[in-house]
Amino acid sequence: MSGPVILREVFDLALRPGVISFAIGLPADDLFPAGDLSRVATDLLTRRPESLQYGVPSPSLKTHIAGMMARRGVTCTPEQVFLTGGSQQAFDLLAHLLLDPGGQVMIERTVYECVLSSLRKFLPELLAMPGDASGGLDLDAVEARLAAGARPAFLYTIPTAHNPLGVSLGVDQRRRLAEIARRYEVPVLEDDAYGFLGDDLYAGENGSTGEAPPAVRSFDDRWVIYLGSFSKLLAPSLRIGWIVMPEDLMPRLQVLKQGNDIDTSTLSQNLAAAYLEAGHLPAHLARVRAAYRERRQALLRALAEHFPPGSRWNVPTGGMFLWLELPPELNATELLRSAVEIEKVAFCPGAAFAAGNGHHADHCLRLSFASFTPDRIEEGIRRLAQAVRRALGQS
Amino acid sequence: MSGPVILREVFDLALRPGVISFAIGLPADDLFPAGDLSRVATDLLTRRPESLQYGVPSPSLKTHIAGMMARRGVTCTPEQVFLTGGSQQAFDLLAHLLLDPGGQVMIERTVYECVLSSLRKFLPELLAMPGDASGGLDLDAVEARLAAGARPAFLYTIPTAHNPLGVSLGVDQRRRLAEIARRYEVPVLEDDAYGFLGDDLYAGENGSTGEAPPAVRSFDDRWVIYLGSFSKLLAPSLRIGWIVMPEDLMPRLQVLKQGNDIDTSTLSQNLAAAYLEAGHLPAHLARVRAAYRERRQALLRALAEHFPPGSRWNVPTGGMFLWLELPPELNATELLRSAVEIEKVAFCPGAAFAAGNGHHADHCLRLSFASFTPDRIEEGIRRLAQAVRRALGQS
Repeated sequence: MSGPVILREVFDLALRPGVISFAIGLPADDLFPAGDLSRVATDLLTRRPESLQYGVPSPSLKTHIAGMMARRGVTCTPEQVFLTGGSQQAFDLLAHLLLDPGGQVMIERTVYECVLSSLRKFLPELLAMPGDASGGLDLDAVEARLAAGARPAFLYTIPTAHNPLGVSLGVDQRRRLAEIARRYEVPVLEDDAYGFLGDDLYAGENGSTGEAPPAVRSFDDRWVIYLGSFSKLLAPSLRIGWIVMPEDLMPRLQVLKQGNDIDTSTLSQNLAAAYLEAGHLPAHLARVRAAYRERRQALLRALAEHFPPGSRWNVPTGGMFLWLELPPELNATELLRSAVEIEKVAFCPGAAFAAGNGHHADHCLRLSFASFTPDRIEEGIRRLAQAVRRALGQS
Repeated sequence: MSGPVILREVFDLALRPGVISFAIGLPADDLFPAGDLSRVATDLLTRRPESLQYGVPSPSLKTHIAGMMARRGVTCTPEQVFLTGGSQQAFDLLAHLLLDPGGQVMIERTVYECVLSSLRKFLPELLAMPGDASGGLDLDAVEARLAAGARPAFLYTIPTAHNPLGVSLGVDQRRRLAEIARRYEVPVLEDDAYGFLGDDLYAGENGSTGEAPPAVRSFDDRWVIYLGSFSKLLAPSLRIGWIVMPEDLMPRLQVLKQGNDIDTSTLSQNLAAAYLEAGHLPAHLARVRAAYRERRQALLRALAEHFPPGSRWNVPTGGMFLWLELPPELNATELLRSAVEIEKVAFCPGAAFAAGNGHHADHCLRLSFASFTPDRIEEGIRRLAQAVRRALGQS
């Protein structure tokens, strides 16, 4: 589990002046609704200074979230919504709830790296499942492992716009995943951080408007636990996430939450609730989705134009990430250093996402495309292609 | 460890309309610097919308905190300051860093209840040390236990304006505690949530201006780890705390932090830093200290005037809490229900703070006096005294 160490180095490299960095999974800060949030904040601090106090989870925010969940195909009550300090805390609390030290956890062999940071303290046995950027989590492998007797504390996955693979599961895969969870009584933690950003998986088909396929939780509300977040919908620094889950699990989770950080910022909760109440979200999300689609298309165009033969990439249909496979003789971690030094471009090496220090992703890298305008993306990919050609001895 | 369950009930009872609640440890919300924070927030969101993004720990905030620490007698560099989402998260991360499941932790037998919430998941062996509201932590007992061979992962204590006991250790006790930590190589987690609020322990002596005695960390910077918080200095909903500790422990703590919640709100960090930069804190703290002193004096006057013989209380010299011992035949948890129902007054029963479900505090209760003006305090104590008289069969 060397992920976190690698990522800190990447962060340092990526922050050097003049570097175009596709390394970190940052939402676009040029799209943050700073003006609306500022007006809401001023109003809150003026009229409701109790927003600065400790407080109970906001009933208003929970009600708004329950309403939003319909857009992901999920029916739930405000009482089934548990508020957290971002979805990373949601994962960490759920791991504490469900996992005993040394227990089993099922993840993908290419996995969001902060999940590894959280799991490390449990010294778990990681059941790392295959899956790739074209098909996503390999459900045959998952089912075979469970049929053979494995009973992990939970399975963690990002079914929509996977980080780092950029792939989304289709509706049939979602239905099947829920069935597997139910049949083997294994909780699935469905991280839907990017679900509200839409997905073009079925755009154009059946009159689709680019909505993401329904959440896995829409197919089972007992064994699928949903993790949501405002980090990519509004702003990471709100630090607001949520869990949709069976109410009978909540009392123990409340104790864990209190022991972790007492409560989630009342100010942030009230800010999010007031922003939603004012009805700002739909127009904001439409702006973000249009911009991310444009940036994704710019990335795909630039890759097609500049990259030498021998590399492969998926076509992400949503989210913020593209997974790039270099020729197998290249090592992406080694490439990063020279790419930053010489071409002034950065990315996140695939090794950061490899569960159990596996080497299957050593020649891969993740590009995070949300933060840049199309012309910066074009320039960054031109530089990256040059770095790859140099590493291949072609320049 | 039934603390959290009791506290949730108390919270519900205390929130009933018309109830004067001394139950929850809330700082005074009539003193929050909402206007200054609102101006700072507007400025940040207008001029620095990157405050809404993920980010690295704020160098500016760490520098300000390092400067503030001088007021607690502590010399440190910004690099020794680790920012957290409140001091509860600081404790929780440090517990993960220092404590293995099933390991030993030394606490006081009367202990801040959220610490028990955090520790519960480790299933620790709790070494519960004696101590009371007049003398604080019993250092003879601590030293005897360590001399007898106990080697807890750490000792947790609140040396200044203890929650719930309201007591502060004197300078000699602090020096001795640091010596004990050093001699037995047992880390002391010094929770200083109330230290900046001052303490009248030595007011009037040697020209003291009511500053709290220096932090225990001022006597040893290797074995004493300091936990600070803006929750009582500025506002709980900022969710900003900090740790001052040896730099060599930081890399592992950073990984734990990332796994817990990725990062602390950039907006909150920048808000706090900008507020400090503007120089608002000293005047604000002076206001809070004066108000808390006035409220404490009102509480002491009301207790002296209204309470029937047989109860005892300490004279807190700082902080937000007073520890009240009822006649031993009374049970404070039972008293609470009727006190809320009949007299419409609430408090926190001592049992909520008893480590290991001990019964030594069953006849005790904690009064949190920071949130009320003197006349509300007077009225609340009149009601509470009536409840006690009724329970004693005197009315």
